[in-house]
Amino acid sequence: MNTTDPTPSAPFTSADYAARMRRAVAEATRAGLDGLLVMPGPELVWLTGYRPTAITERLTVLVLAADHEPTLVVPALERPDAEGATAAPGLMIVDWADGEDPFARAGALIRADATLGISDSAWAMHLLGLQDAVPGTSYLSLTQSLPMLRAVKDAAELARLEAAGAAADATYEQILGVRFAGRRETEVAADLARLLREFGHEQVDFTVVGSGPNGANPHHEAGERTIEVGDAVVLDFGGLMHGYGSDTSRTVCVGEPRPEIRDVHEIVRLAQQAGVDAVQPGVACQEIDRAARAVISDAGYGDRFIHRTGHGIGTTTHEPPYMIEGEEQPLVPGMCFSVEPGIYLAGRFGVRIEDIVTVTDTGARRFNNTERDLRIVE
Amino acid sequence: MNTTDPTPSAPFTSADYAARMRRAVAEATRAGLDGLLVMPGPELVWLTGYRPTAITERLTVLVLAADHEPTLVVPALERPDAEGATAAPGLMIVDWADGEDPFARAGALIRADATLGISDSAWAMHLLGLQDAVPGTSYLSLTQSLPMLRAVKDAAELARLEAAGAAADATYEQILGVRFAGRRETEVAADLARLLREFGHEQVDFTVVGSGPNGANPHHEAGERTIEVGDAVVLDFGGLMHGYGSDTSRTVCVGEPRPEIRDVHEIVRLAQQAGVDAVQPGVACQEIDRAARAVISDAGYGDRFIHRTGHGIGTTTHEPPYMIEGEEQPLVPGMCFSVEPGIYLAGRFGVRIEDIVTVTDTGARRFNNTERDLRIVE
Repeated sequence: MNTTDPTPSAPFTSADYAARMRRAVAEATRAGLDGLLVMPGPELVWLTGYRPTAITERLTVLVLAADHEPTLVVPALERPDAEGATAAPGLMIVDWADGEDPFARAGALIRADATLGISDSAWAMHLLGLQDAVPGTSYLSLTQSLPMLRAVKDAAELARLEAAGAAADATYEQILGVRFAGRRETEVAADLARLLREFGHEQVDFTVVGSGPNGANPHHEAGERTIEVGDAVVLDFGGLMHGYGSDTSRTVCVGEPRPEIRDVHEIVRLAQQAGVDAVQPGVACQEIDRAARAVISDAGYGDRFIHRTGHGIGTTTHEPPYMIEGEEQPLVPGMCFSVEPGIYLAGRFGVRIEDIVTVTDTGARRFNNTERDLRIVE
Repeated sequence: MNTTDPTPSAPFTSADYAARMRRAVAEATRAGLDGLLVMPGPELVWLTGYRPTAITERLTVLVLAADHEPTLVVPALERPDAEGATAAPGLMIVDWADGEDPFARAGALIRADATLGISDSAWAMHLLGLQDAVPGTSYLSLTQSLPMLRAVKDAAELARLEAAGAAADATYEQILGVRFAGRRETEVAADLARLLREFGHEQVDFTVVGSGPNGANPHHEAGERTIEVGDAVVLDFGGLMHGYGSDTSRTVCVGEPRPEIRDVHEIVRLAQQAGVDAVQPGVACQEIDRAARAVISDAGYGDRFIHRTGHGIGTTTHEPPYMIEGEEQPLVPGMCFSVEPGIYLAGRFGVRIEDIVTVTDTGARRFNNTERDLRIVE
């Protein structure tokens, strides 16, 4: 299946994309779908390499179905861009001009009573337009209908994720040497962004620096707070390298930690290890969540672990499979996801530790390998 | 209605957002809608000032309806961010935790047979979840149901758009002095981005440098082509300043233009002027398109003007009203949009001239005021 050189920087070829599109149609058919509608975003990039310069109100959609060639419907003025996509040799390209009805154009490629998978992040406006143009059709999101389409990575994708993880690790090693005390969170965040780029990321997506009480908000990014001696600081950063994501978290302490920070950190470290240890082919995703959560609950902090344990990663930072109670999908070798338990003590501090792992034939292999013990910074 | 200081940098207040939400509910009721569902993106920013750190698969939705207070449904772990939004004092905030059903939570705020407006760019996955949770509901995109909700700008918004336009103009004046010949398009594009930031933009959205044949593709961004003496070069750039957009285009020539470039440029200049001259309160949007297009058609290039004449601008670069055949919406003072005809000669060159204008009581006022005659660069 993978015809690509596994060197992380080797570009995917039109044959790679053609194979992915064939596989997508086959999996859609197996799942009882009559076809797939793929809009600009991560799925379209994954299937074709095509990334319009902007995602706008003008409809672009890849229509995949067993009864015709892969067909990309694009605004007329974006046709030259589409023709330049790597997958173009394996695509029919159909355009529509301003003033024409794009839904009629796309609708003509769809059976009147079709059940279709549609990109999660397709615009509601476009879904409504299609529902209106072909009223007998019904739709399921790709996450609902084909959640594991992109979940199992091939060798070329694994090489990219591993390289991105190594670059994030190098960033962490360097950030341990910068000054924290007396600087604002945004300044340390800027250091993280600079380092990720220095180590090869083409895009920085998030640089969380949650110091002291800000660390207790798991989605805090970085703010104007000045970091103080004694703070626990949650660092959570990542982006894209060769088109694939990195995402790692460590929590450091500025100067000597008080005992509570040390204790909570150790609980989270053990929870993260338990989550990774639970990874085995065939094990349900929710078991990873349960394993990490049990350690935190047993320590009395169950109600302070307020998010799922992990998310898949690939051309997007959040994608299936999700490590969450209720997700019974069994793990398959080649799946890649985060294991990132945390404890959040509102108004005081938070701790999170996160690695990306991939499922192997025998367990988990980490793409993040920096020290997980509590490190002290200045 | 506008309680805001019209200084471009003065932040909007919670009273401003509360007034916008009340106006949105009133306009929705008048349009026969039972409520509005507003997802992260430009409409949510406009209504509440709230911009989640990332737009993800986790549902965030503002539910506006006449029969209850404005209610923001957010993932539990983003609750602290939502509580920090400027509009928060005027909002009920309801959260859902990982593993709970967000569609049940949002669905409880919706009448079982409601007709609702929904953000254009809401995720299809979220619309499908709501259609499933409350099957008697029906939906229309905001562009379809309330296209002019954000179209008429108040004084504070006009001040921001004017300031963004002036910064884009300053960028153009400076770019005329840089070297074009022998440099790659991407290098000139980087100059444009740097200048936009220097003149106060917090975000650069596009920096088109279309030299020679690349100018004939209206959506070409900037590539590796080396600019040559004799090239026409389409420059089209903009971004956000104080949260509001800029967008201007000029076409320059590297060294002395050959007669065809001069002739085509003059046709486009006259077309752009005709479009601006047609702006009057009460005139239908399509008349602006017709006025500009007539000049180009009369000159024999009608089939080379392959896009609409303009788009609205505000917190987003493309929004209603659209200056396009078939758009019968009458112009209203305070509307802001681009007038940007072009001629595209495949394989050879293109010309586009674009200003943002606002509708006044008596005609149009331009927010871009740099010279529109063909300028020669080195």
